[in-house]
Amino acid sequence: MKHVMIVGGGFAGINAAKELGNKKDVRITLIDRKNYHLFQPLLYQVAMSALGTGDVAEPLRNMLARYKNIEVFKGVVENVDQKRKVIQTDFGEMSYDYLILACGVKHHYFGNEEWEEHAPGLKIIAQATEIRRRVMEAYEAAERASDPVERKKLLTFVIVGGGPTGVELAGSIGEMSRFTLSKYYKHIDPKLTRIFIVEAAPRILGSFSPELASKATRALEQLGVQVWTNSMVTNVDRNGVQIGNERIEAATVLWAAGVRAIGLGRKMGVEIDHSGRIIVEEDLSIPGHPEIFVGGDQAHFSHHTDQPLPGMAPVALQQGRAIGKNILSELKGKERKPFRYLDKGQMATIGRNKAIVEIGRFKFFGSFAWFTWLLVHIYYLTTFKHRVFVLLQWGWSYFTFGHGARLIVNKEWRFYPDKKSANVEEES
Amino acid sequence: MKHVMIVGGGFAGINAAKELGNKKDVRITLIDRKNYHLFQPLLYQVAMSALGTGDVAEPLRNMLARYKNIEVFKGVVENVDQKRKVIQTDFGEMSYDYLILACGVKHHYFGNEEWEEHAPGLKIIAQATEIRRRVMEAYEAAERASDPVERKKLLTFVIVGGGPTGVELAGSIGEMSRFTLSKYYKHIDPKLTRIFIVEAAPRILGSFSPELASKATRALEQLGVQVWTNSMVTNVDRNGVQIGNERIEAATVLWAAGVRAIGLGRKMGVEIDHSGRIIVEEDLSIPGHPEIFVGGDQAHFSHHTDQPLPGMAPVALQQGRAIGKNILSELKGKERKPFRYLDKGQMATIGRNKAIVEIGRFKFFGSFAWFTWLLVHIYYLTTFKHRVFVLLQWGWSYFTFGHGARLIVNKEWRFYPDKKSANVEEES
Repeated sequence: MKHVMIVGGGFAGINAAKELGNKKDVRITLIDRKNYHLFQPLLYQVAMSALGTGDVAEPLRNMLARYKNIEVFKGVVENVDQKRKVIQTDFGEMSYDYLILACGVKHHYFGNEEWEEHAPGLKIIAQATEIRRRVMEAYEAAERASDPVERKKLLTFVIVGGGPTGVELAGSIGEMSRFTLSKYYKHIDPKLTRIFIVEAAPRILGSFSPELASKATRALEQLGVQVWTNSMVTNVDRNGVQIGNERIEAATVLWAAGVRAIGLGRKMGVEIDHSGRIIVEEDLSIPGHPEIFVGGDQAHFSHHTDQPLPGMAPVALQQGRAIGKNILSELKGKERKPFRYLDKGQMATIGRNKAIVEIGRFKFFGSFAWFTWLLVHIYYLTTFKHRVFVLLQWGWSYFTFGHGARLIVNKEWRFYPDKKSANVEEES
Repeated sequence: MKHVMIVGGGFAGINAAKELGNKKDVRITLIDRKNYHLFQPLLYQVAMSALGTGDVAEPLRNMLARYKNIEVFKGVVENVDQKRKVIQTDFGEMSYDYLILACGVKHHYFGNEEWEEHAPGLKIIAQATEIRRRVMEAYEAAERASDPVERKKLLTFVIVGGGPTGVELAGSIGEMSRFTLSKYYKHIDPKLTRIFIVEAAPRILGSFSPELASKATRALEQLGVQVWTNSMVTNVDRNGVQIGNERIEAATVLWAAGVRAIGLGRKMGVEIDHSGRIIVEEDLSIPGHPEIFVGGDQAHFSHHTDQPLPGMAPVALQQGRAIGKNILSELKGKERKPFRYLDKGQMATIGRNKAIVEIGRFKFFGSFAWFTWLLVHIYYLTTFKHRVFVLLQWGWSYFTFGHGARLIVNKEWRFYPDKKSANVEEES
């Protein structure tokens, strides 16, 4: 009985696990620091109050319960001893015959990690609820503010990074401020919300064709989003961002720029690229270690393309499956197959009825693209329950222009978070 | 134009606001430290992963948007200057003609406020998600644990307080451990979960008849809940609770015992009872201050009964309406009416198909009571959307025995919560 250790329950890890589940001569252990699989492509909708946390995440134990040969642990992998074929976790060591690394990436502030405090990224649920809290608190504070300069700062949002996530965040804020929030405040006009996308490259959505990117830019501008390209952020503080000599005063800054692979690769002494991704062979294994595979955002795979494959859900999903299949083949004494990415295209949504879809030579913009985006995301949502509930939420929002989940949940669960500051009886 | 200031958006505050909404000669300001109204009776279901946070809460702005004469601020009221008729908030002063205090209660640890860290209460959403996190983390840690004593401690849950909330929490943990979680773990048997209700009084559910309370006790015992009565907790620490000479080792302790009114009453120098509740006249105003009303859990009303009215949603709801009506009457030059509580009974649920309902002389237990409980709660849920979504969630859970929202959301939104502890690259 061979033991396959999978580190990470994202798209790569979970699909490798499913491929190996209930198969003969193999048992699987999956470790993740979270207890859930996250449908990352919709996480921005949680941040923007359009969906609840439970709609885009599913406990890993639920997803894998039907496989008798898979066990799940919530834990942190600290290192890999490649010689002894052992991983070190925060609850002890575990040995493996095959190891699949699928730990993903985290946000990267280009050496200015102190910016994180002022500009949260969007990779885990807790970050989505934190972004939601900051955005909604900004409107509440603006409603209370008497100083017009302060109010303007509170109604200014800067998104650093013009990839799909940055565009989706900016579009959602634009739409929410114009169509939803404008009904709910008496002292401010949420339609006057200023939103900036700050992108270092010459244009946003660099992975899409220039034609679609410029259509997206125009659609963003219609929602009041100002797109600043060729603009490198040089500082972020609690009052805004600096872009060389220019400055935008903003109470809320969100980070949708660089990512870097989780640091395990560096520690293992294997070959990595400048983003910390592990450079893999054609079969997704590590050079010299055929028993160790890497999949998803953590893998640098550039065998059939100029650029390494991008950090997208479809790439991770296909890689996870391919790794699982290669392990099964080997157990049956067959040859491994090289990984081939089947490019199904890419898409991003800007707002209601507005999306861009690019599949090879085919480019779509507008309602049809938006509907395609919707169908594809519903199709890939993890469980039937999620599909039903997300469709209902979307249907509800579509017809009511509502963002129903607009709750500010405190960071602290204590009734009086800041006990030190004063007599707790001071507050009402 | 008279200005009515409402402090607190719970059942009392929101119903007073609705009563006054869109009426002539009056404008209303509602202040709450949260931005949402909470359907408190179902909050334990959020803590137990049966519902999402958005299912039991609604932004105050949504609920009050249709009233042109109501404005809402998220803020904290720090004091009341009764002479100048002004409230002091964390964003400045505001004057009032009428003031409605509906600030509610918070948990009270009988002078041992340091217990809160080890035994969170259940009053706001952030506490519900914290309880969910602790309960689910305990099962995850038990699955990882190699020491059987440690594992036993992790699978032990103590609920302090045997009122409806304590009973509902204990029943839910019992049911979840037996019917849901037992499918998902390989190294532990969640059916062996030990659950204790520790109650200082001679019996649990003191507000119900002894007959129903003993039926509820038996139903709890069938779910593996041990009910300790006449048991006063003398200490709570991170490893369990002390009850005089006895001790229960438990990784998770939840607090459903005493509450105390928010401290505004004490600061205002008005007459309060031992729980900090403000003693009110028959029309719910403060003696000597007919322009100040108190409603809901913060009010001590004992004009027609031996005991002051209990801190329940129906009491708060009726009081809020009565205050609103009395203000409207007075504006029209009419007399105020004394408040009369229309007792519609009380109910608590223990588990699937098991609830107790007591309406005057009528007592129900079992499926019929459970169905009544369900209908009443759905009926009183705040919005149509909530009703539909909660019914769907319940229907789904009923047939699948699922607790779908079992996500552990970190307390910290940062990807590496504990940066100080080590090189952030250490983690996977």
